Amino acid sequence: MGTLRFSDDDTDLDLLYADLAEQDLQPLWRLQGLLTRQPRVRAVPYRWPGKQLRALGERSGRLVGIDRGGDRRVLACCNPGLDGAPYAVPTLWAAVQYLGPGELAPAHRHTPAALRFILEGSGVWTLVDGDPLAMAAGDLILTPSWTFHEHHNAGNTPMLWMDVLDLPVVAALDAVFFEEGPSEEVERRTDPVSRSEQWYGSGAGLLPRSAQRSAPRHSPLLAYRWADTDRALDRQLEATGERTVTIVYSDPTRGTDVMPTMRCEMTRVRPGGSTPAVRQTGSRVLCVFRGSGTAHIGGQSWPLEPGDILAVPSWAAWHLEADEQLDVFSTSDAPVLEALGLWREEPADVR
Amino acid sequence: MGTLRFSDDDTDLDLLYADLAEQDLQPLWRLQGLLTRQPRVRAVPYRWPGKQLRALGERSGRLVGIDRGGDRRVLACCNPGLDGAPYAVPTLWAAVQYLGPGELAPAHRHTPAALRFILEGSGVWTLVDGDPLAMAAGDLILTPSWTFHEHHNAGNTPMLWMDVLDLPVVAALDAVFFEEGPSEEVERRTDPVSRSEQWYGSGAGLLPRSAQRSAPRHSPLLAYRWADTDRALDRQLEATGERTVTIVYSDPTRGTDVMPTMRCEMTRVRPGGSTPAVRQTGSRVLCVFRGSGTAHIGGQSWPLEPGDILAVPSWAAWHLEADEQLDVFSTSDAPVLEALGLWREEPADVR
Amino acid sequence: MGTLRFSDDDTDLDLLYADLAEQDLQPLWRLQGLLTRQPRVRAVPYRWPGKQLRALGERSGRLVGIDRGGDRRVLACCNPGLDGAPYAVPTLWAAVQYLGPGELAPAHRHTPAALRFILEGSGVWTLVDGDPLAMAAGDLILTPSWTFHEHHNAGNTPMLWMDVLDLPVVAALDAVFFEEGPSEEVERRTDPVSRSEQWYGSGAGLLPRSAQRSAPRHSPLLAYRWADTDRALDRQLEATGERTVTIVYSDPTRGTDVMPTMRCEMTRVRPGGSTPAVRQTGSRVLCVFRGSGTAHIGGQSWPLEPGDILAVPSWAAWHLEADEQLDVFSTSDAPVLEALGLWREEPADVR
Amino acid sequence: MGTLRFSDDDTDLDLLYADLAEQDLQPLWRLQGLLTRQPRVRAVPYRWPGKQLRALGERSGRLVGIDRGGDRRVLACCNPGLDGAPYAVPTLWAAVQYLGPGELAPAHRHTPAALRFILEGSGVWTLVDGDPLAMAAGDLILTPSWTFHEHHNAGNTPMLWMDVLDLPVVAALDAVFFEEGPSEEVERRTDPVSRSEQWYGSGAGLLPRSAQRSAPRHSPLLAYRWADTDRALDRQLEATGERTVTIVYSDPTRGTDVMPTMRCEMTRVRPGGSTPAVRQTGSRVLCVFRGSGTAHIGGQSWPLEPGDILAVPSWAAWHLEADEQLDVFSTSDAPVLEALGLWREEPADVR
Repeated sequence: MGTLRFSDDDTDLDLLYADLAEQDLQPLWRLQGLLTRQPRVRAVPYRWPGKQLRALGERSGRLVGIDRGGDRRVLACCNPGLDGAPYAVPTLWAAVQYLGPGELAPAHRHTPAALRFILEGSGVWTLVDGDPLAMAAGDLILTPSWTFHEHHNAGNTPMLWMDVLDLPVVAALDAVFFEEGPSEEVERRTDPVSRSEQWYGSGAGLLPRSAQRSAPRHSPLLAYRWADTDRALDRQLEATGERTVTIVYSDPTRGTDVMPTMRCEMTRVRPGGSTPAVRQTGSRVLCVFRGSGTAHIGGQSWPLEPGDILAVPSWAAWHLEADEQLDVFSTSDAPVLEALGLWREEPADVR
Repeated sequence: MGTLRFSDDDTDLDLLYADLAEQDLQPLWRLQGLLTRQPRVRAVPYRWPGKQLRALGERSGRLVGIDRGGDRRVLACCNPGLDGAPYAVPTLWAAVQYLGPGELAPAHRHTPAALRFILEGSGVWTLVDGDPLAMAAGDLILTPSWTFHEHHNAGNTPMLWMDVLDLPVVAALDAVFFEEGPSEEVERRTDPVSRSEQWYGSGAGLLPRSAQRSAPRHSPLLAYRWADTDRALDRQLEATGERTVTIVYSDPTRGTDVMPTMRCEMTRVRPGGSTPAVRQTGSRVLCVFRGSGTAHIGGQSWPLEPGDILAVPSWAAWHLEADEQLDVFSTSDAPVLEALGLWREEPADVR
Repeated sequence: MGTLRFSDDDTDLDLLYADLAEQDLQPLWRLQGLLTRQPRVRAVPYRWPGKQLRALGERSGRLVGIDRGGDRRVLACCNPGLDGAPYAVPTLWAAVQYLGPGELAPAHRHTPAALRFILEGSGVWTLVDGDPLAMAAGDLILTPSWTFHEHHNAGNTPMLWMDVLDLPVVAALDAVFFEEGPSEEVERRTDPVSRSEQWYGSGAGLLPRSAQRSAPRHSPLLAYRWADTDRALDRQLEATGERTVTIVYSDPTRGTDVMPTMRCEMTRVRPGGSTPAVRQTGSRVLCVFRGSGTAHIGGQSWPLEPGDILAVPSWAAWHLEADEQLDVFSTSDAPVLEALGLWREEPADVR
Repeated sequence: MGTLRFSDDDTDLDLLYADLAEQDLQPLWRLQGLLTRQPRVRAVPYRWPGKQLRALGERSGRLVGIDRGGDRRVLACCNPGLDGAPYAVPTLWAAVQYLGPGELAPAHRHTPAALRFILEGSGVWTLVDGDPLAMAAGDLILTPSWTFHEHHNAGNTPMLWMDVLDLPVVAALDAVFFEEGPSEEVERRTDPVSRSEQWYGSGAGLLPRSAQRSAPRHSPLLAYRWADTDRALDRQLEATGERTVTIVYSDPTRGTDVMPTMRCEMTRVRPGGSTPAVRQTGSRVLCVFRGSGTAHIGGQSWPLEPGDILAVPSWAAWHLEADEQLDVFSTSDAPVLEALGLWREEPADVR
């Protein structure tokens, strides 16, 4: 932005600027790019191929163990636009986690909230505040803010899943707290149905008389099973007669997002179908669960395979096309944008 | 309540009372029983035996038809304390409805909201705003305020269910509206799954992207199936380790009651178990679905059999005991009491 | 409604009806007027003239005292359509209360909520849970559900105000509780500003850091002063450029109605102006504070003078016309209708 | 964090790390400081002295004009811990703005929300979506997200105020939009009372019948006048009997914060009094309006004078002590922390 100078004498201005700097002040008229017509997004559209993520996860599993210090064998997706920050998009950490047979990732808790979307396999249990949640392909598992969580692989095969955390948001707000759990008293129970599901997971709209609607601002249902999601997608597709449908994973006691910082969705696209092209404020991470097709994000295109993780930056036009029936899991910061009155969405012209 | 008279001359007072009456005024000090230490309840605890309800329903079916005028073959429970008003409790209409094979109860709508709890059989379809809802034993079917609804029996056997309406509440507020549906265009579709269930019934917390959370103040899920309820009851019992548990049927998009005037619950009591004895403001209608035991209400006791309907007046202590495993459906006006800040509940000493 | 009889034999039907009656059941097809196309309203439009109310209040003051039994010197408006029930409309008690110099109406509390709108004079204090609220012409004073309240006249002149209670609603829900306060420890403090106003009444949007937004479902501000109301009416009229405007008295911590059962409004109509003619579900009591004009309610008309109380039954078309500038206070059950999804409003054609 | 290596051969690990880098992945076990026991805060406690801000504002006014490019004569406070970013704390822009007699800062709008707290003088009008708001010492003026706003100085003296914006939050969410207003049609009206105040500012709890409670997530009251704030502070102090009290500026239609991203408060401390020492998550900017005393923030102390701006970083213990009666305006990101479930507060031991 320009300035209209009242003085011809540069000396006065130079002195002013020097004095301002000394007082830790900056004049607005010398700052650039603060208020832009549209979001000035540094993150770029990107894809991390599922094959590479799996192969590198396995290699890490052979070379690196899990100890009290490291806690997790995790490979974080780093958006090339973010100058080396370990974030897939500016507001979300996305990563693959690999856990070998018999391995255990010990208990800890932190204010950043996390979710796990399971790409393949089964046999791992995540314990959330002591409640054992079996993990299997297609399941969504929540470990909300400040809940203790640990993972242990009770099976005979390694397992791979995607972690998403709101870590960049919590860090930007200077609100990260972390605490290790008691390392000795590791829980190894593997109840067939978690308490969370016993209380809240039996069917739509069937709540216990004293439902936990109060303090913790997250869903009391911590596991969303693939069989239910799969059936819901098929039924909703049937109800619409459309070729694509999207489910929002929700808190059954409130109908709100599962956690206050992250919206979780599953989109199914029938072969030959396509999602509507849109641009939205806020950032999004996609993860292909099943099927094949093409992702179009911000003018770039990628073929899709199971396990692919993709970054959709803010205000980039995006849509998905299916060759085979395509199931894509998505996490976005939409609840944050909505809570702060900053959500915008518009159709995008992509021809 | 008494009065302190300043005047010894009754004439003055008599003249005053006469003038007040002429002006359509009443002096508070001559009114009695307006403000009582505890609710002065006219409704009495009561039981309508299921056997009688079924037998009388069948007799009505043989003797009386359904036409455009009568609309419904319904027997209303009349609480003996309510001076002949056709209400089971002061705020709820409860009745049994009987529909023979091939019979049709034509479409209409009204501001009083209704629900159907199916006692036995199957084969009847209720259409709510054109959405066909199959009815079978143990299901809860909603026909919310001002939705068109009709029933038709597509099966070979008669069917019996309980209707509950908030009619007395709506009437007391002078807000009853009624409209007949188009009698010719009767819908006979019997889709295997209603649209309501396709959209909202596939699993806890799996909502369509554009969930209907807005104007209509009722659950968009209109049918709660017994298989789901049964499983939820068992799981919640297991989670508690108690001998009784209660589920609240809820709006999956909000976690609130299914309709703004009526709370619907299902209570399961294991053999030998008992619900806690409580007294609550507001009125309640119980309906035994399965099992046997004893109901204790306001100092009276009744043995319980399937199909029994019972009235629990406001502030009467009540609890249920199970011989065989007991499943009891319950409708109360609790959402009204809560919305108006009048809900009270306390443990009752019943020894 | 009619019936289609399958049987030619009246004997069978008669027997059925006898057996139904014995079992406390009534057949729907023999009931009339349950579901009407529009509300079947028994209450009638009505006016109690202010002059009469004042004169009869004074006569009562001369003839009848206030003692522990009677508690209040109150004349209740009895709508002629309600068969002698002491209610102005089916959901609201409306009355004038008269308190002479030095008199005291002792403390009690009840679940029915009350409000006082002061017609003339000053000098009386209402204590709500011990907080002394001065009363003067044009003020609205709340005594919410289950708050202790007492009135004492510390002045030299008698005082007259209107009481409105939600008593019929609470009674219909069988939720009336009543308790006397401690008769000895009468509070005679007359602080210039109540605690309620100190905390919540200094200006729009200026809340204490720990505002009471929680349990009690009523406004923490218990007194709305005429000076503020008067100024707000004038300013809003100026902002609109219209000839009439209506203010809703609101809970400053929530923006909701002051109490969950009653909406309080003040309408100002400029000379020659008129309120829009509407019909609404639910009942309303009007009270003329200042000015003159005409009330049109359900096809009837009354000239208006200060102190007049009027009944507006459900779904009756109504509007007000001003000769002199007209200020009319109004209480309705609209929050109940809205909470239960039964609110309807439409313009009425009154020519 | 450490790693447990399964392999003795560094070559394998080096190869893995190279391959990860090539795939834009980073192993968690080589990242440091992501999850810290307490917030790792880069911003430092700081004070910008009011005298300097005023002097430098005046010097800027002599040397630099306002044109269509620059738009505003603003000096931004730059927290020394934030590597040159022009933010007072990580989530808030704070600055002084200086406007000379007859000057005009033209209309524009942006998604970042702004507020103005007026330090001294009068004569400037801010127009918000065309509604002219007079500005005077002690007033709080809102220019919510995406509202057009312009400032013009109709008086004879320059004027200085503090701007606070949520710009860093909106930028971190990639949701900054900006638009210039029509430069020709500058509004020069200076109505004595803004429409916003006519509708919403006349008194606590006096709302227009159709209050704007819907879409825009900000207070419809855009100006909070010092006279009201001053009276509220005194009354609340009297009600408590304490030596300090804090008012939260609130949306009168909802009781919530004035804007979804910023909480505005005014704290008064009586001479010799002190605010409680606390630590809180999230960041805060203080601005001394009147009085003198000492600020203690994160172990540092500063004497306080009118016009001082101070930075309170997340989780730093802070409190204020008054010599003369002290009035301190405060803006924090607390609504963001609360909306996302990240708010924590605890008493701090400061001895």
